[in-house]
Amino acid sequence: MMDVVTSARNPKVVAAARLAQAKERRTRGEMLLEGPHLVDEAARAGIHLVSLFGLATDDLARRLAQDARAAWIPCTSEVLTRLGSTDHPRGPIAVAAIPAVEVPWRRDSVVAHVSDPGNAGTLIRSAAAFGLDIRFGGRAVDVWSPKVLRAGAGAHFLTGVSTGLEVVPLSVGTIATVVEGGEPVPDAIQALDPTRLWAIVVGSEAHGLDRSAIARSTVAVTIPMAGATESLNAAVAGSIVAYELARWRYSVGGPTGGH
Amino acid sequence: MMDVVTSARNPKVVAAARLAQAKERRTRGEMLLEGPHLVDEAARAGIHLVSLFGLATDDLARRLAQDARAAWIPCTSEVLTRLGSTDHPRGPIAVAAIPAVEVPWRRDSVVAHVSDPGNAGTLIRSAAAFGLDIRFGGRAVDVWSPKVLRAGAGAHFLTGVSTGLEVVPLSVGTIATVVEGGEPVPDAIQALDPTRLWAIVVGSEAHGLDRSAIARSTVAVTIPMAGATESLNAAVAGSIVAYELARWRYSVGGPTGGH
Repeated sequence: MMDVVTSARNPKVVAAARLAQAKERRTRGEMLLEGPHLVDEAARAGIHLVSLFGLATDDLARRLAQDARAAWIPCTSEVLTRLGSTDHPRGPIAVAAIPAVEVPWRRDSVVAHVSDPGNAGTLIRSAAAFGLDIRFGGRAVDVWSPKVLRAGAGAHFLTGVSTGLEVVPLSVGTIATVVEGGEPVPDAIQALDPTRLWAIVVGSEAHGLDRSAIARSTVAVTIPMAGATESLNAAVAGSIVAYELARWRYSVGGPTGGH
Repeated sequence: MMDVVTSARNPKVVAAARLAQAKERRTRGEMLLEGPHLVDEAARAGIHLVSLFGLATDDLARRLAQDARAAWIPCTSEVLTRLGSTDHPRGPIAVAAIPAVEVPWRRDSVVAHVSDPGNAGTLIRSAAAFGLDIRFGGRAVDVWSPKVLRAGAGAHFLTGVSTGLEVVPLSVGTIATVVEGGEPVPDAIQALDPTRLWAIVVGSEAHGLDRSAIARSTVAVTIPMAGATESLNAAVAGSIVAYELARWRYSVGGPTGGH
């Protein structure tokens, strides 16, 4: 029986807790995964779990650590609270390696410039559901933060997620999502060239896409709105275009035959 | 020139700050609106603004208070921080009357049982964009909380929003959104009876819709997903069905001719 870690000042706890900061995550290439669902999805996807903090009585978590060859660190709920990002974090909490950020351009993608953690996680979830990879712009939110991981609900480990994107290859067509003045969805999607790969570009919550990004895009699309407001949440707008792109791709087939 | 309120213990500040609590909002029928956009949208919609806290130098806010016949309370940024729900709230912050909750069944609706404030606000925004009213179930989140108002981005005041919904009238058809096993969208939507009003029913994030709610619905629909995960964020799923319902309604016309 291992000693139960009871102090939030234990060096292992202090080192793990620092991963709440983006800078520390970048430097160490590690992140925190909270709760059985995220830990389990990561382990299944072959993400390296370094260590696993859990209540001493949490046999499921202990076995999960064994199976993943992670260091098992039994601890108190106070320690979990120190490590977690919610008021009452559910154990276990894992220290895990951030996966490599290179995602080949092998299928359609979402390119996201969002800064809200909830929107980033929601878009990752939609991308995974619709069979798309997702790439985040250099100034977008840190996708391996606890909030984005929570909103992603495990989808980070079910599709290609990359960060720090600067340019989209010329061979990949770009679909700018704009609030007004674009070609209407879904007709604009159904007119795309099926022999190309396509990337849906979603701007920031505050400013959308800038003029030059829209001018550089292959096509600009707008979701028709009948209502009193001409504005959708950025993650919702991106998800609706992703839904239409997936429907279209399913009907026309993929450029690589891989769809 | 009025005296500038500098103390967070000023009775007016204390009374306003209490509106951060759901119980206090219910009892008094008042809410807090943060930032010029929300205050402005509410004023345009004819919402009664009781008082407006803003920096003494904020001439725009002072004029807004005058136009809305609200009591103008010049204050310090410390007072705004006490009243606001973010770390650095942008003034002005208004105490405003919560609008009456009766929304007639006059057009298609979203019926939401979500409990996450961000999802609730996002759904209100999507409903407004797609020309739908929105009704929240009795155990759903309090839609007049600062978080839901922020996520709604002003849409609370652009469409019918009601709370405490118990039953949908028999004359209104219900569309249950389910993760799997429903009829696929958009075909299921295009097959609806255009002479009826329709309500899209969105379950809670944790549990979706219960079996009896699905069994009672006129039709159950599922968003086809090609990806590795069979799950979308609840607000995204509801918004995609709302998008399809609005497209369909626009093409077939409304039961009341009012669409």
